[in-house]
Amino acid sequence: MTEELTSFLQEIKYDIEERLPKHLEQLRAPLVLKDAMIYSLNAGGKRIRPALLLATIKSFEKPIRSGLDMACAIEMIHTYSLIHDDLPAMDDDDLRRGKPTNHKVFGEAMAILAGDALLTYSFELVATMNEKEITATQKLLLIQELAKAAGPEGMVGGQVADIEGENQALTLEELVYIHQHKTGELLAMSIVAGAIIAGATTDDIRNLRLFAKELGLMFQIKDDILDVEGDTETIGKPSGSDDGNNKSTYPNLLGLNGAKKKLDEHMLRAKEYLYNVNMNHELLLTLTTYVAERDH
Amino acid sequence: MTEELTSFLQEIKYDIEERLPKHLEQLRAPLVLKDAMIYSLNAGGKRIRPALLLATIKSFEKPIRSGLDMACAIEMIHTYSLIHDDLPAMDDDDLRRGKPTNHKVFGEAMAILAGDALLTYSFELVATMNEKEITATQKLLLIQELAKAAGPEGMVGGQVADIEGENQALTLEELVYIHQHKTGELLAMSIVAGAIIAGATTDDIRNLRLFAKELGLMFQIKDDILDVEGDTETIGKPSGSDDGNNKSTYPNLLGLNGAKKKLDEHMLRAKEYLYNVNMNHELLLTLTTYVAERDH
Repeated sequence: MTEELTSFLQEIKYDIEERLPKHLEQLRAPLVLKDAMIYSLNAGGKRIRPALLLATIKSFEKPIRSGLDMACAIEMIHTYSLIHDDLPAMDDDDLRRGKPTNHKVFGEAMAILAGDALLTYSFELVATMNEKEITATQKLLLIQELAKAAGPEGMVGGQVADIEGENQALTLEELVYIHQHKTGELLAMSIVAGAIIAGATTDDIRNLRLFAKELGLMFQIKDDILDVEGDTETIGKPSGSDDGNNKSTYPNLLGLNGAKKKLDEHMLRAKEYLYNVNMNHELLLTLTTYVAERDH
Repeated sequence: MTEELTSFLQEIKYDIEERLPKHLEQLRAPLVLKDAMIYSLNAGGKRIRPALLLATIKSFEKPIRSGLDMACAIEMIHTYSLIHDDLPAMDDDDLRRGKPTNHKVFGEAMAILAGDALLTYSFELVATMNEKEITATQKLLLIQELAKAAGPEGMVGGQVADIEGENQALTLEELVYIHQHKTGELLAMSIVAGAIIAGATTDDIRNLRLFAKELGLMFQIKDDILDVEGDTETIGKPSGSDDGNNKSTYPNLLGLNGAKKKLDEHMLRAKEYLYNVNMNHELLLTLTTYVAERDH
Protein backbone atom coordinates (compact mmCIF):
# COMPACT_ATOMS: atom_id res chain seq x y z
CA MET A 1 0.00 0.00 0.00
CA THR A 2 1.35 3.42 -0.88
CA GLU A 3 1.91 5.98 1.84
CA GLU A 4 -0.64 8.28 0.19
CA LEU A 5 -3.33 5.59 0.31
CA THR A 6 -2.48 4.69 3.90
CA SER A 7 -2.83 8.25 5.07
CA PHE A 8 -6.03 8.73 3.00
CA LEU A 9 -7.61 5.61 4.56
CA GLN A 10 -6.55 6.65 8.06
CA GLU A 11 -7.96 10.11 7.61
CA ILE A 12 -11.29 8.73 6.31
CA LYS A 13 -11.50 6.22 9.16
CA TYR A 14 -10.91 8.99 11.66
CA ASP A 15 -13.50 11.33 10.10
CA ILE A 16 -16.15 8.61 9.85
CA GLU A 17 -15.58 7.20 13.33
CA GLU A 18 -15.84 10.67 14.79
CA ARG A 19 -19.03 11.45 12.88
CA LEU A 20 -20.92 8.13 13.17
CA PRO A 21 -21.87 8.22 16.88
CA LYS A 22 -22.68 11.94 16.77
CA HIS A 23 -25.65 11.26 14.50
CA LEU A 24 -27.05 8.83 17.04
CA GLU A 25 -26.20 10.63 20.28
CA GLN A 26 -28.57 13.46 19.40
CA LEU A 27 -31.57 11.13 18.84
CA ARG A 28 -34.50 11.30 21.26
CA ALA A 29 -34.68 7.55 21.74
CA PRO A 30 -34.33 5.07 24.63
CA LEU A 31 -30.75 5.14 25.92
CA VAL A 32 -30.27 1.37 25.75
CA LEU A 33 -31.25 1.42 22.06
CA LYS A 34 -28.77 4.19 21.29
CA ASP A 35 -26.10 2.32 23.27
CA ALA A 36 -26.74 -0.87 21.28
CA MET A 37 -26.62 0.99 17.96
CA ILE A 38 -23.44 2.88 18.87
CA TYR A 39 -21.76 -0.24 20.31
CA SER A 40 -21.71 -1.96 16.93
CA LEU A 41 -21.03 1.21 14.95
CA ASN A 42 -17.96 1.78 17.12
CA ALA A 43 -16.72 -1.78 16.72
CA GLY A 44 -14.18 -0.69 14.14
CA GLY A 45 -13.56 -2.45 10.87
CA LYS A 46 -11.86 -1.26 7.73
CA ARG A 47 -14.54 1.34 6.85
CA ILE A 48 -13.96 0.22 3.27
CA ARG A 49 -17.36 1.45 2.03
CA PRO A 50 -16.85 5.04 3.24
CA ALA A 51 -13.32 4.89 1.80
CA LEU A 52 -14.63 3.82 -1.62
CA LEU A 53 -17.30 6.51 -1.60
CA LEU A 54 -14.98 9.31 -0.56
CA ALA A 55 -12.15 8.13 -2.82
CA THR A 56 -14.56 8.34 -5.75
CA ILE A 57 -15.56 11.89 -4.86
CA LYS A 58 -11.91 12.85 -4.47
CA SER A 59 -11.09 11.30 -7.85
CA PHE A 60 -13.63 13.64 -9.45
CA GLU A 61 -11.84 16.46 -7.62
CA LYS A 62 -14.87 17.33 -5.49
CA PRO A 63 -14.81 18.04 -1.72
CA ILE A 64 -14.86 14.89 0.42
CA ARG A 65 -17.01 16.69 2.97
CA SER A 66 -20.02 16.45 0.63
CA GLY A 67 -20.04 12.64 1.00
CA LEU A 68 -19.50 12.21 4.75
CA ASP A 69 -23.17 11.79 5.72
CA MET A 70 -23.81 9.38 2.85
CA ALA A 71 -20.75 7.40 3.97
CA CYS A 72 -22.18 7.26 7.51
CA ALA A 73 -25.53 6.03 6.16
CA ILE A 74 -23.87 3.22 4.20
CA GLU A 75 -21.75 2.24 7.20
CA MET A 76 -24.92 2.12 9.34
CA ILE A 77 -26.54 -0.28 6.85
CA HIS A 78 -23.39 -2.41 6.75
CA THR A 79 -23.38 -2.47 10.57
CA TYR A 80 -27.07 -3.43 10.82
CA SER A 81 -26.40 -6.34 8.45
CA LEU A 82 -23.56 -7.58 10.65
CA ILE A 83 -25.74 -7.37 13.80
CA HIS A 84 -28.53 -9.40 12.19
CA ASP A 85 -26.09 -11.86 10.56
CA ASP A 86 -24.55 -12.63 13.95
CA LEU A 87 -27.91 -13.52 15.57
CA PRO A 88 -28.42 -17.07 16.90
CA ALA A 89 -31.04 -17.73 14.19
CA MET A 90 -28.50 -16.74 11.53
CA ASP A 91 -24.72 -17.35 11.87
CA ASP A 92 -24.85 -17.55 15.68
CA ASP A 93 -21.55 -15.76 16.23
CA ASP A 94 -20.36 -14.78 19.71
CA LEU A 95 -17.49 -12.59 18.55
CA ARG A 96 -17.08 -9.95 15.86
CA ARG A 97 -13.70 -8.27 15.40
CA GLY A 98 -12.62 -9.74 18.73
CA LYS A 99 -15.50 -8.16 20.68
CA PRO A 100 -18.73 -9.83 21.91
CA THR A 101 -21.46 -9.54 19.25
CA ASN A 102 -24.38 -7.17 19.80
CA HIS A 103 -26.84 -9.81 21.03
CA LYS A 104 -24.24 -11.18 23.45
CA VAL A 105 -24.07 -7.77 25.12
CA PHE A 106 -27.63 -6.42 24.73
CA GLY A 107 -29.71 -9.57 24.22
CA GLU A 108 -31.38 -10.88 21.09
CA ALA A 109 -34.45 -8.61 21.11
CA MET A 110 -32.35 -5.46 21.44
CA ALA A 111 -29.93 -6.64 18.73
CA ILE A 112 -32.82 -7.16 16.29
CA LEU A 113 -34.20 -3.70 17.15
CA ALA A 114 -30.79 -1.97 17.02
CA GLY A 115 -30.36 -3.40 13.52
CA ASP A 116 -33.85 -2.28 12.48
CA ALA A 117 -33.16 1.19 13.89
CA LEU A 118 -29.81 1.59 12.10
CA LEU A 119 -31.37 0.51 8.81
CA THR A 120 -34.32 2.87 9.17
CA TYR A 121 -32.29 5.83 10.41
CA SER A 122 -29.83 5.56 7.52
CA PHE A 123 -32.61 6.57 5.11
CA GLU A 124 -33.57 9.52 7.28
CA LEU A 125 -29.94 10.59 7.27
CA VAL A 126 -29.72 10.56 3.47
CA ALA A 127 -33.09 12.33 3.10
CA THR A 128 -32.01 15.11 5.47
CA MET A 129 -28.35 15.54 4.45
CA ASN A 130 -27.46 19.16 4.92
CA GLU A 131 -25.49 19.53 1.72
CA LYS A 132 -26.62 22.44 -0.36
CA GLU A 133 -24.75 21.24 -3.44
CA ILE A 134 -26.79 18.00 -3.55
CA THR A 135 -30.21 18.46 -5.16
CA ALA A 136 -33.43 16.73 -4.08
CA THR A 137 -33.29 14.63 -7.26
CA GLN A 138 -29.75 13.47 -6.42
CA LYS A 139 -30.79 12.57 -2.87
CA LEU A 140 -33.74 10.54 -4.18
CA LEU A 141 -31.39 8.70 -6.54
CA LEU A 142 -29.04 7.97 -3.62
CA ILE A 143 -31.94 6.59 -1.55
CA GLN A 144 -33.09 4.47 -4.47
CA GLU A 145 -29.59 3.05 -5.05
CA LEU A 146 -29.07 2.45 -1.33
CA ALA A 147 -32.38 0.63 -0.89
CA LYS A 148 -31.82 -1.47 -4.02
CA ALA A 149 -28.31 -2.45 -2.94
CA ALA A 150 -29.40 -3.30 0.62
CA GLY A 151 -32.83 -4.83 -0.01
CA PRO A 152 -34.36 -8.02 -1.46
CA GLU A 153 -32.65 -7.55 -4.84
CA GLY A 154 -29.34 -6.84 -3.15
CA MET A 155 -27.80 -7.64 0.22
CA VAL A 156 -30.82 -9.32 1.84
CA GLY A 157 -31.33 -11.44 -1.28
CA GLY A 158 -27.68 -12.51 -1.13
CA GLN A 159 -28.00 -13.39 2.55
CA VAL A 160 -31.04 -15.56 1.77
CA ALA A 161 -29.17 -17.32 -1.06
CA ASP A 162 -26.21 -17.82 1.32
CA ILE A 163 -28.44 -19.48 3.94
CA GLU A 164 -30.15 -21.60 1.29
CA GLY A 165 -26.77 -22.72 -0.05
CA GLU A 166 -25.38 -23.76 3.34
CA ASN A 167 -24.10 -27.31 3.54
CA GLN A 168 -24.62 -27.68 -0.21
CA ALA A 169 -22.11 -27.93 -3.00
CA LEU A 170 -22.56 -24.73 -5.00
CA THR A 171 -21.69 -24.06 -8.62
CA LEU A 172 -19.39 -21.13 -9.36
CA GLU A 173 -22.42 -19.28 -10.75
CA GLU A 174 -24.33 -19.69 -7.48
CA LEU A 175 -21.29 -18.62 -5.47
CA VAL A 176 -20.91 -15.48 -7.61
CA TYR A 177 -24.62 -14.69 -7.13
CA ILE A 178 -24.26 -14.90 -3.35
CA HIS A 179 -21.16 -12.72 -3.22
CA GLN A 180 -22.37 -10.15 -5.70
CA HIS A 181 -25.51 -9.69 -3.67
CA LYS A 182 -24.45 -10.29 -0.09
CA THR A 183 -21.44 -7.98 -0.17
CA GLY A 184 -20.89 -6.78 -3.75
CA GLU A 185 -23.96 -4.59 -4.20
CA LEU A 186 -23.31 -2.38 -1.16
CA LEU A 187 -19.61 -2.04 -2.03
CA ALA A 188 -20.54 -1.11 -5.60
CA MET A 189 -23.22 1.25 -4.36
CA SER A 190 -20.60 3.12 -2.31
CA ILE A 191 -18.71 3.96 -5.48
CA VAL A 192 -21.87 4.79 -7.44
CA ALA A 193 -23.00 7.05 -4.59
CA GLY A 194 -19.69 8.90 -4.75
CA ALA A 195 -20.17 9.41 -8.48
CA ILE A 196 -23.74 10.67 -8.00
CA ILE A 197 -22.65 13.13 -5.31
CA ALA A 198 -19.76 14.31 -7.52
CA GLY A 199 -22.26 14.96 -10.33
CA ALA A 200 -20.69 12.42 -12.72
CA THR A 201 -22.19 11.77 -16.17
CA THR A 202 -24.47 8.76 -16.80
CA ASP A 203 -21.68 7.13 -18.82
CA ASP A 204 -19.13 7.56 -16.05
CA ILE A 205 -21.61 6.19 -13.50
CA ARG A 206 -22.23 3.15 -15.74
CA ASN A 207 -18.51 2.39 -16.06
CA LEU A 208 -17.90 2.93 -12.35
CA ARG A 209 -20.76 0.53 -11.55
CA LEU A 210 -19.08 -2.13 -13.71
CA PHE A 211 -15.70 -1.35 -12.13
CA ALA A 212 -17.27 -1.62 -8.68
CA LYS A 213 -18.86 -4.96 -9.48
CA GLU A 214 -15.45 -6.40 -10.38
CA LEU A 215 -13.92 -4.84 -7.28
CA GLY A 216 -16.64 -6.39 -5.07
CA LEU A 217 -15.91 -9.85 -6.45
CA MET A 218 -12.18 -9.28 -6.01
CA PHE A 219 -12.84 -8.35 -2.41
CA GLN A 220 -14.71 -11.59 -1.74
CA ILE A 221 -12.28 -13.84 -3.59
CA LYS A 222 -9.42 -12.26 -1.64
CA ASP A 223 -11.35 -12.83 1.61
CA ASP A 224 -11.71 -16.52 0.72
CA ILE A 225 -8.01 -16.76 -0.14
CA LEU A 226 -7.04 -15.02 3.12
CA ASP A 227 -9.29 -17.42 4.97
CA VAL A 228 -7.16 -20.30 3.68
CA GLU A 229 -3.81 -18.55 3.91
CA GLY A 230 -4.19 -16.05 6.74
CA ASP A 231 -3.55 -16.74 10.37
CA THR A 232 -6.09 -16.00 13.10
CA GLU A 233 -4.17 -13.07 14.51
CA THR A 234 -4.05 -11.07 11.29
CA ILE A 235 -7.63 -11.44 10.04
CA GLY A 236 -9.33 -11.57 13.45
CA LYS A 237 -11.30 -14.80 13.08
CA PRO A 238 -10.19 -18.42 13.23
CA SER A 239 -8.53 -19.30 9.90
CA GLY A 240 -10.64 -21.66 7.82
CA SER A 241 -13.80 -20.83 9.83
CA ASP A 242 -15.95 -20.76 6.67
CA ASP A 243 -14.61 -24.22 5.91
CA GLY A 244 -15.91 -25.40 9.26
CA ASN A 245 -19.42 -24.24 8.29
CA ASN A 246 -19.10 -26.35 5.15
CA LYS A 247 -19.49 -23.28 2.94
CA SER A 248 -18.51 -23.17 -0.69
CA THR A 249 -15.58 -20.83 -1.34
CA TYR A 250 -13.54 -19.88 -4.39
CA PRO A 251 -10.49 -21.89 -3.26
CA ASN A 252 -12.75 -24.90 -2.61
CA LEU A 253 -14.27 -24.64 -6.10
CA LEU A 254 -11.23 -23.56 -8.11
CA GLY A 255 -8.28 -24.52 -5.96
CA LEU A 256 -6.06 -21.87 -4.35
CA ASN A 257 -4.23 -21.10 -7.59
CA GLY A 258 -7.47 -21.07 -9.57
CA ALA A 259 -8.90 -18.55 -7.11
CA LYS A 260 -5.80 -16.36 -7.45
CA LYS A 261 -6.09 -16.51 -11.25
CA LYS A 262 -9.75 -15.51 -10.98
CA LEU A 263 -8.77 -12.59 -8.77
CA ASP A 264 -6.29 -11.39 -11.42
CA GLU A 265 -8.91 -11.68 -14.17
CA HIS A 266 -11.36 -9.51 -12.21
CA MET A 267 -8.59 -6.99 -11.46
CA LEU A 268 -7.78 -6.71 -15.17
CA ARG A 269 -11.44 -6.07 -16.05
CA ALA A 270 -11.84 -3.66 -13.13
CA LYS A 271 -8.96 -1.53 -14.42
CA GLU A 272 -10.35 -1.55 -17.97
CA TYR A 273 -13.67 -0.15 -16.80
CA LEU A 274 -11.93 2.39 -14.58
CA TYR A 275 -9.82 3.76 -17.47
CA ASN A 276 -13.07 4.57 -19.33
CA VAL A 277 -14.09 7.01 -16.61
CA ASN A 278 -13.27 10.67 -16.99
CA MET A 279 -11.57 11.19 -13.60
CA ASN A 280 -8.21 11.07 -11.88
CA HIS A 281 -7.67 7.28 -11.73
CA GLU A 282 -4.73 7.06 -9.34
CA LEU A 283 -6.50 6.65 -5.99
CA LEU A 284 -9.00 4.02 -7.15
CA LEU A 285 -6.23 2.15 -8.99
CA THR A 286 -4.16 2.02 -5.81
CA LEU A 287 -7.25 0.88 -3.88
CA THR A 288 -7.88 -1.86 -6.44
CA THR A 289 -4.33 -3.15 -6.09
CA TYR A 290 -4.68 -2.94 -2.31
CA VAL A 291 -7.85 -5.10 -2.34
CA ALA A 292 -5.98 -7.77 -4.31
CA GLU A 293 -2.78 -7.64 -2.28
CA ARG A 294 -3.89 -6.91 1.30
CA ASP A 295 -2.90 -9.46 3.96
CA HIS A 296 -5.98 -9.03 6.21
CA MET B 1 -70.12 2.94 10.98
CA THR B 2 -71.87 4.75 8.12
CA GLU B 3 -72.45 2.95 4.85
CA GLU B 4 -70.25 5.46 3.07
CA LEU B 5 -67.29 4.74 5.38
CA THR B 6 -67.84 0.98 5.10
CA SER B 7 -67.72 1.08 1.33
CA PHE B 8 -64.73 3.46 1.37
CA LEU B 9 -62.77 1.13 3.69
CA GLN B 10 -63.70 -1.93 1.63
CA GLU B 11 -62.64 -0.24 -1.58
CA ILE B 12 -59.29 0.82 -0.07
CA LYS B 13 -58.67 -2.65 1.35
CA TYR B 14 -59.34 -4.17 -2.06
CA ASP B 15 -57.07 -1.70 -3.91
CA ILE B 16 -54.22 -2.09 -1.44
CA GLU B 17 -54.42 -5.88 -1.21
CA GLU B 18 -54.39 -6.13 -4.98
CA ARG B 19 -51.42 -3.76 -5.28
CA LEU B 20 -49.21 -4.93 -2.38
CA PRO B 21 -48.03 -8.32 -3.75
CA LYS B 22 -47.58 -6.93 -7.28
CA HIS B 23 -44.72 -4.73 -6.09
CA LEU B 24 -42.94 -7.78 -4.71
CA GLU B 25 -43.73 -10.34 -7.41
CA GLN B 26 -41.69 -8.36 -9.95
CA LEU B 27 -38.55 -8.30 -7.78
CA ARG B 28 -35.48 -10.24 -8.93
CA ALA B 29 -34.92 -11.90 -5.56
CA PRO B 30 -34.85 -15.45 -4.16
CA LEU B 31 -38.35 -16.99 -4.41
CA VAL B 32 -38.47 -18.08 -0.79
CA LEU B 33 -37.75 -14.51 0.33
CA LYS B 34 -40.52 -13.11 -1.86
CA ASP B 35 -42.87 -15.84 -0.58
CA ALA B 36 -42.06 -14.95 3.03
CA MET B 37 -42.57 -11.22 2.39
CA ILE B 38 -45.86 -11.76 0.52
CA TYR B 39 -47.15 -14.28 3.09
CA SER B 40 -47.25 -11.66 5.83
CA LEU B 41 -48.36 -8.83 3.55
CA ASN B 42 -51.32 -10.98 2.49
CA ALA B 43 -52.24 -11.88 6.06
CA GLY B 44 -55.03 -9.30 6.05
CA GLY B 45 -55.70 -6.86 8.83
CA LYS B 46 -57.70 -3.68 8.83
CA ARG B 47 -55.36 -1.75 6.52
CA ILE B 48 -56.05 1.21 8.77
CA ARG B 49 -52.87 3.08 7.81
CA PRO B 50 -53.63 3.05 4.06
CA ALA B 51 -57.21 4.03 4.91
CA LEU B 52 -56.04 7.04 6.96
CA LEU B 53 -53.62 8.14 4.25
CA LEU B 54 -56.11 7.85 1.41
CA ALA B 55 -58.98 9.33 3.46
CA THR B 56 -56.79 12.39 4.07
CA ILE B 57 -56.05 12.78 0.36
CA LYS B 58 -59.76 12.38 -0.44
CA SER B 59 -60.66 14.99 2.19
CA PHE B 60 -58.44 17.48 0.34
CA GLU B 61 -60.37 16.51 -2.82
CA LYS B 62 -57.30 15.08 -4.52
CA PRO B 63 -57.17 11.74 -6.42
CA ILE B 64 -56.68 8.71 -4.16
CA ARG B 65 -54.52 7.08 -6.86
CA SER B 66 -51.68 9.48 -6.03
CA GLY B 67 -51.29 7.91 -2.57
CA LEU B 68 -51.55 4.19 -3.37
CA ASP B 69 -47.79 3.48 -3.53
CA MET B 70 -47.13 5.47 -0.36
CA ALA B 71 -49.92 3.49 1.34
CA CYS B 72 -48.25 0.25 0.22
CA ALA B 73 -44.90 1.43 1.60
CA ILE B 74 -46.42 2.22 5.01
CA GLU B 75 -48.23 -1.13 5.08
CA MET B 76 -44.92 -2.88 4.28
CA ILE B 77 -43.28 -1.17 7.25
CA HIS B 78 -46.21 -2.05 9.49
CA THR B 79 -45.97 -5.68 8.29
CA TYR B 80 -42.19 -5.87 8.88
CA SER B 81 -42.75 -4.64 12.44
CA LEU B 82 -45.31 -7.39 13.07
CA ILE B 83 -42.96 -10.08 11.69
CA HIS B 84 -40.10 -8.96 13.95
CA ASP B 85 -42.42 -8.45 16.97
CA ASP B 86 -43.66 -12.04 16.68
CA LEU B 87 -40.12 -13.53 16.75
CA PRO B 88 -39.19 -15.89 19.62
CA ALA B 89 -36.72 -13.31 20.97
CA MET B 90 -39.51 -10.71 21.09
CA ASP B 91 -43.18 -11.58 21.79
CA ASP B 92 -42.77 -15.23 20.72
CA ASP B 93 -46.19 -15.49 19.07
CA ASP B 94 -47.23 -18.55 17.07
CA LEU B 95 -50.36 -17.02 15.58
CA ARG B 96 -51.18 -13.67 14.00
CA ARG B 97 -54.73 -13.01 12.80
CA GLY B 98 -55.46 -16.72 13.16
CA LYS B 99 -52.59 -17.78 10.85
CA PRO B 100 -49.16 -19.16 11.80
CA THR B 101 -46.65 -16.33 12.22
CA ASN B 102 -43.92 -15.80 9.62
CA HIS B 103 -41.15 -17.59 11.54
CA LYS B 104 -43.46 -20.56 12.19
CA VAL B 105 -43.82 -21.04 8.44
CA PHE B 106 -40.45 -19.89 7.06
CA GLY B 107 -38.12 -20.24 10.06
CA GLU B 108 -36.54 -17.55 12.21
CA ALA B 109 -33.71 -16.55 9.87
CA MET B 110 -36.06 -16.05 6.93
CA ALA B 111 -38.52 -14.09 9.10
CA ILE B 112 -35.78 -11.70 10.20
CA LEU B 113 -34.66 -11.26 6.58
CA ALA B 114 -38.21 -10.90 5.22
CA GLY B 115 -38.75 -8.10 7.73
CA ASP B 116 -35.46 -6.45 6.79
CA ALA B 117 -36.35 -6.71 3.11
CA LEU B 118 -39.83 -5.21 3.55
CA LEU B 119 -38.40 -2.31 5.54
CA THR B 120 -35.68 -1.61 3.00
CA TYR B 121 -37.88 -2.02 -0.05
CA SER B 122 -40.50 0.38 1.31
CA PHE B 123 -37.99 3.24 0.98
CA GLU B 124 -37.15 2.24 -2.58
CA LEU B 125 -40.87 2.26 -3.35
CA VAL B 126 -41.32 5.82 -2.06
CA ALA B 127 -38.17 7.04 -3.82
CA THR B 128 -39.34 5.61 -7.16
CA MET B 129 -43.09 6.36 -6.96
CA ASN B 130 -44.27 7.00 -10.48
CA GLU B 131 -46.47 9.97 -9.64
CA LYS B 132 -45.75 12.96 -11.80
CA GLU B 133 -47.70 15.31 -9.53
CA ILE B 134 -45.38 14.56 -6.56
CA THR B 135 -42.13 16.54 -6.67
CA ALA B 136 -38.71 15.26 -5.63
CA THR B 137 -38.86 17.55 -2.59
CA GLN B 138 -42.21 16.08 -1.54
CA LYS B 139 -40.86 12.53 -1.93
CA LEU B 140 -37.83 13.40 0.22
CA LEU B 141 -40.16 14.80 2.88
CA LEU B 142 -42.23 11.59 2.77
CA ILE B 143 -39.08 9.47 3.20
CA GLN B 144 -37.94 11.65 6.08
CA GLU B 145 -41.33 11.41 7.84
CA LEU B 146 -41.54 7.66 7.21
CA ALA B 147 -38.06 6.96 8.56
CA LYS B 148 -38.63 9.18 11.60
CA ALA B 149 -41.96 7.51 12.41
CA ALA B 150 -40.57 4.00 11.98
CA GLY B 151 -37.06 4.42 13.39
CA PRO B 152 -35.33 4.89 16.77
CA GLU B 153 -37.30 8.07 17.55
CA GLY B 154 -40.56 6.39 16.55
CA MET B 155 -41.79 2.80 16.29
CA VAL B 156 -38.51 1.03 17.13
CA GLY B 157 -38.02 3.33 20.14
CA GLY B 158 -41.55 2.49 21.32
CA GLN B 159 -40.90 -1.22 20.91
CA VAL B 160 -37.73 -0.90 23.02
CA ALA B 161 -39.62 1.00 25.73
CA ASP B 162 -42.33 -1.66 25.62
CA ILE B 163 -39.81 -4.46 26.16
CA GLU B 164 -38.08 -2.48 28.93
CA GLY B 165 -41.43 -1.93 30.64
CA GLU B 166 -42.49 -5.57 30.58
CA ASN B 167 -43.45 -7.05 33.95
CA GLN B 168 -43.14 -3.60 35.50
CA ALA B 169 -45.80 -1.29 36.82
CA LEU B 170 -45.77 1.67 34.43
CA THR B 171 -46.95 5.21 35.05
CA LEU B 172 -49.55 6.67 32.70
CA GLU B 173 -46.79 8.84 31.22
CA GLU B 174 -44.64 5.82 30.42
CA LEU B 175 -47.63 4.00 28.93
CA VAL B 176 -48.43 7.01 26.71
CA TYR B 177 -44.79 7.15 25.56
CA ILE B 178 -44.88 3.49 24.53
CA HIS B 179 -48.15 3.78 22.64
CA GLN B 180 -47.34 7.06 20.96
CA HIS B 181 -44.12 5.61 19.66
CA LYS B 182 -44.89 1.92 19.10
CA THR B 183 -48.10 2.48 17.14
CA GLY B 184 -48.99 6.18 17.24
CA GLU B 185 -46.18 7.59 15.12
CA LEU B 186 -46.82 5.40 12.08
CA LEU B 187 -50.58 5.99 12.28
CA ALA B 188 -49.99 9.74 12.53
CA MET B 189 -47.45 9.58 9.72
CA SER B 190 -50.09 8.01 7.46
CA ILE B 191 -52.26 11.10 7.84
CA VAL B 192 -49.32 13.51 7.50
CA ALA B 193 -48.22 11.65 4.35
CA GLY B 194 -51.69 12.09 2.87
CA ALA B 195 -51.51 15.82 3.60
CA ILE B 196 -48.03 16.11 2.02
CA ILE B 197 -49.17 14.26 -1.12
CA ALA B 198 -52.29 16.46 -1.31
CA GLY B 199 -50.06 19.53 -1.17
CA ALA B 200 -51.53 20.83 2.12
CA THR B 201 -50.21 24.00 3.78
CA THR B 202 -47.73 23.85 6.66
CA ASP B 203 -50.48 24.97 9.04
CA ASP B 204 -52.87 22.26 7.89
CA ILE B 205 -50.12 19.64 8.19
CA ARG B 206 -49.37 20.82 11.74
CA ASN B 207 -53.01 20.54 12.81
CA LEU B 208 -53.41 17.16 11.12
CA ARG B 209 -50.31 15.90 12.92
CA LEU B 210 -51.87 16.93 16.25
CA PHE B 211 -55.19 15.37 15.22
CA ALA B 212 -53.39 12.17 14.22
CA LYS B 213 -51.54 11.99 17.53
CA GLU B 214 -54.86 12.06 19.41
CA LEU B 215 -56.33 9.50 17.02
CA GLY B 216 -53.35 7.18 17.58
CA LEU B 217 -53.84 7.30 21.34
CA MET B 218 -57.59 6.71 20.90
CA PHE B 219 -56.76 3.67 18.79
CA GLN B 220 -54.57 2.17 21.50
CA ILE B 221 -56.91 2.97 24.41
CA LYS B 222 -59.77 1.38 22.45
CA ASP B 223 -57.59 -1.69 21.78
CA ASP B 224 -56.95 -1.99 25.52
CA ILE B 225 -60.67 -1.61 26.28
CA LEU B 226 -61.58 -4.21 23.64
CA ASP B 227 -59.00 -6.52 25.13
CA VAL B 228 -60.94 -6.44 28.42
CA GLU B 229 -64.42 -6.41 26.91
CA GLY B 230 -64.07 -8.23 23.58
CA ASP B 231 -64.42 -11.93 23.09
CA THR B 232 -61.79 -14.05 21.32
CA GLU B 233 -63.86 -14.59 18.18
CA THR B 234 -64.38 -10.90 17.41
CA ILE B 235 -60.88 -9.49 17.97
CA GLY B 236 -58.94 -12.60 16.84
CA LYS B 237 -56.74 -13.09 19.90
CA PRO B 238 -57.51 -14.52 23.32
CA SER B 239 -59.31 -11.84 25.33
CA GLY B 240 -57.10 -10.47 28.11
CA SER B 241 -53.94 -11.77 26.46
CA ASP B 242 -51.99 -8.60 27.28
CA ASP B 243 -53.02 -9.13 30.88
CA GLY B 244 -51.41 -12.57 30.78
CA ASN B 245 -48.10 -10.95 29.76
CA ASN B 246 -48.41 -8.71 32.80
CA LYS B 247 -48.44 -5.58 30.64
CA SER B 248 -49.67 -2.23 31.80
CA THR B 249 -52.85 -1.12 30.02
CA TYR B 250 -55.16 1.89 30.26
CA PRO B 251 -57.94 -0.12 32.00
CA ASN B 252 -55.38 -1.50 34.46
CA LEU B 253 -54.12 2.00 35.27
CA LEU B 254 -57.37 4.00 35.10
CA GLY B 255 -60.07 1.38 35.50
CA LEU B 256 -62.41 0.51 32.63
CA ASN B 257 -64.53 3.64 33.06
CA GLY B 258 -61.46 5.83 33.49
CA ALA B 259 -60.09 4.46 30.21
CA LYS B 260 -63.38 5.19 28.47
CA LYS B 261 -63.34 8.74 29.81
CA LYS B 262 -59.76 9.16 28.56
CA LEU B 263 -60.87 7.92 25.14
CA ASP B 264 -63.61 10.57 25.05
CA GLU B 265 -61.15 13.32 26.05
CA HIS B 266 -58.79 12.40 23.23
CA MET B 267 -61.72 12.25 20.78
CA LEU B 268 -62.78 15.75 21.77
CA ARG B 269 -59.28 17.14 21.22
CA ALA B 270 -58.90 15.21 17.96
CA LYS B 271 -62.04 16.84 16.58
CA GLU B 272 -60.89 20.30 17.68
CA TYR B 273 -57.63 19.97 15.75
CA LEU B 274 -59.45 18.54 12.75
CA TYR B 275 -61.86 21.49 12.53
CA ASN B 276 -58.84 23.82 12.19
CA VAL B 277 -57.88 22.14 8.91
CA ASN B 278 -59.05 23.62 5.64
CA MET B 279 -60.55 20.45 4.15
CA ASN B 280 -63.77 18.46 3.90
CA HIS B 281 -63.96 17.04 7.46
CA GLU B 282 -66.67 14.45 7.08
CA LEU B 283 -64.68 11.33 6.24
CA LEU B 284 -62.01 11.80 8.94
CA LEU B 285 -64.72 12.67 11.48
CA THR B 286 -66.56 9.44 10.70
CA LEU B 287 -63.27 7.53 10.93
CA THR B 288 -62.55 9.13 14.32
CA THR B 289 -65.94 8.05 15.65
CA TYR B 290 -65.37 4.59 14.20
CA VAL B 291 -62.03 4.20 16.02
CA ALA B 292 -63.76 5.03 19.30
CA GLU B 293 -66.83 2.86 18.73
CA ARG B 294 -65.56 -0.18 16.80
CA ASP B 295 -66.15 -3.58 18.38
CA HIS B 296 -62.98 -5.26 17.03
